[in-house]
Formats: sequence, C-alpha cells, structure tokens
Amino acid sequence: MLKLFYAVGSCALASHIALEEAGAQYETVRLDFRAGDQRKPEYLKINPKGRVPALITDLGILTETPAILAYVAQVFPKASLAPLADPFAFARVQSFNSYLCSTVHVNHAHGPRGSRWADEASSFEDMKRKVPKTVGDSFALMESEMVEGPWVTGKAYTICDPYLFTVAGWLERDGVDIARFPKIHDQHKRMAERPAVKKVLAEWLRT
Amino acid sequence: MLKLFYAVGSCALASHIALEEAGAQYETVRLDFRAGDQRKPEYLKINPKGRVPALITDLGILTETPAILAYVAQVFPKASLAPLADPFAFARVQSFNSYLCSTVHVNHAHGPRGSRWADEASSFEDMKRKVPKTVGDSFALMESEMVEGPWVTGKAYTICDPYLFTVAGWLERDGVDIARFPKIHDQHKRMAERPAVKKVLAEWLRT
Repeated sequence: MLKLFYAVGSCALASHIALEEAGAQYETVRLDFRAGDQRKPEYLKINPKGRVPALITDLGILTETPAILAYVAQVFPKASLAPLADPFAFARVQSFNSYLCSTVHVNHAHGPRGSRWADEASSFEDMKRKVPKTVGDSFALMESEMVEGPWVTGKAYTICDPYLFTVAGWLERDGVDIARFPKIHDQHKRMAERPAVKKVLAEWLRT
Repeated sequence: MLKLFYAVGSCALASHIALEEAGAQYETVRLDFRAGDQRKPEYLKINPKGRVPALITDLGILTETPAILAYVAQVFPKASLAPLADPFAFARVQSFNSYLCSTVHVNHAHGPRGSRWADEASSFEDMKRKVPKTVGDSFALMESEMVEGPWVTGKAYTICDPYLFTVAGWLERDGVDIARFPKIHDQHKRMAERPAVKKVLAEWLRT
C-alpha cells in the first residue's frame, strides 16, 4: 500500500490532497520536525534528503512534490488529475508545478530557513525582510500570467490546484495578503470547501 | 517549428541538448543577459518570468527545464529519452530533475544571484561563502544516493543526463572539485563526448 510521510506545515500537503482526490488507498506517517524526526537514521533510510514528502510505493520510494503529484495522476487516471493524453497540456501542468517548487517555495523558505544558504544572523534578517516582496511578486506573476481560473489550468481541476493551495496557505505567514490576487484567492476558498481537502486538513490539524 | 530561447551559461543548455538528442527540427535564439535581453518587452511577452529556457511550440510556449525536458521526451518517443510507459520510472526521472531545479540550481544561484533573496552586500558575501558547501553537499547526496551510473538512472541515457551535465558544468565556478564524485565525473566526461553535446557546445561557445 502507498504510504505518505508528511510534516504539518510542509509542502507534503499537496501530495496528501492529491492522494485523497485520487481515491487512493494509502497510509500516512506524520513526522515531527521540531523533534528532528526528519534527521533520524530510520527516516534518512527512506529519504536521505531529510525532507518531506516521501511516498513509499510497491516499486520503491518517490520524493519531490512535482514527481509525486504526476505519479498519482498517472496511476489513478480515472481521477482525471492531469491531461495525461496531451503532452503539451501535461507539460504546462509540470511547468506550473516546477515554478512552485523552484521559485515560489524557495522564496518562501528564505523566511524560516535562511540557514540553508547563509550563516550570519544579519543575513537571515535581511532574507526575512525580503520575503513579502519575493513571494508577493511570484504570486502577482502567477495571478496575471499563469492561473486561468476557476482552477489553475482552467475548467479542469488538476494536480496544480492542491500544490497552489499549499503554497498559498503560507502567504499570511509571509506577510502577503492573498486578497491581492483575486483568481488565486477564489481558488483557495473553493479548495477549502472540497471534501478531500477538508478530510486531509482535519488530519493535519489533529494534535 | 520549435524555437528555443537560451543564454550562454544558463540551464537552457539541458533543453538544447535534449532537442538535439531527440533529433528535433528546431531553431535557437540567443539572449544576451548582460545586455538585459531577458528584461526587454519583446522577450517578456514570450516568458514573463524574464528567464530562460523558453520553448515556442506550435501549441504555445513552455518554460521551466523539467517540463521542457519531459515534453521533448514525450513528443520524440523514438529517441527513448525517458521511460514513458512506466509511471514509477518516469516519476524517478522527474524527481531527479525536480531536485536539480529546486535544490541544486538554487544552491548554485546564491553565488551570482543573491540579490534575488536579500538586499545587503554583507548578505551576498555570506551567501557566496556558503556555495561550495551547499553545492558540494547536494552533489555528494546525488553521487551516493541518486546517480546509478553509467548514466543517471543506470544503463539508459535519459533527460536527467543533460540536466546533470549542465548543473555539474557550474561546479568549478562554485569552488567544488567534480573529482570528489566519481560517478558524476565519469558521466560528465562521457556526456562531453556525445555528438549532440559537442554540436550544442560548439554553438554556445561561438562568440
């Protein structure tokens, strides 16, 4: 059976929602990042990067959100979570998710995790100050150039939607008002009403 | 016809090599980043992110290296650049490329492009000092946990290979000795001998 490793507050939320939307049979394992679970030897055997998400499958382990999302869409085709038969449309989906992981998530991470890329306290403060601008600029670009509405790629709900929902969920912490981005704000509210999202969030909010 | 926008020194090299390996009919357009071509209105109409690569297709424009690489593999299946019929193996390919774009490229970028995430000169210097460690750690992890050899995923040459070749080409500038990573070093030397790579590099090195 599929087994997803996640930590509350992390980008693993996107993969968790996708599994639920797909109607997959799966188990979850919650890591406590504050307790350093992600650095313990038993978890590093699963994901040597010490990050989440990690998805154990019958064939092996997958990491990286865009790869897990595309995998879920491909192995549960009845859920129609990606335009699998259209290479160009599929590439647009992958492009959006790639932008989220390589630019938007990275901009966000400079708030809480500046020590990944620098060592001085003054640098961390400098990075934190810039997060509202970098994250805000990324979202402004997605709003004007990428998000079609009502879902990311238009009428069809895809694996872009749980990922955007996840990253947009960090906006308040990043000092950015989601109301600046009407299409994304609307998508966020409709995401929160989906049964799959409600079910997953109920698990994440359980202490 | 396909048209690829690139800048010398950029990660667009991976997409360029993949197009050549695929036997695609394509044109290229070189941008001069020092002249600010990527910020000119005519290019921002093609890629509002002001980055490369961008690939114009008959159906529309694609950006983001992992998406372009997967697209090339899918529309030129005879070139066998990805395990298209095996969702798990394809996801492993996507996972590797996602790690390159979201972690390894980002670690590298903190050398030349710290101003993306901070504003103070002291922060830029701090970031630059840490690049050999962060990039070196990423490559050590790829060497020990991800790269199978002789190619990234094992016996089959895939779209992971030109992307790794591209990012590994920045190691010297990043202050990291590629010889620390025997499988990656070996892959790099064999990549440089491939006719497709030689042809693309000849174009890139032309002044």
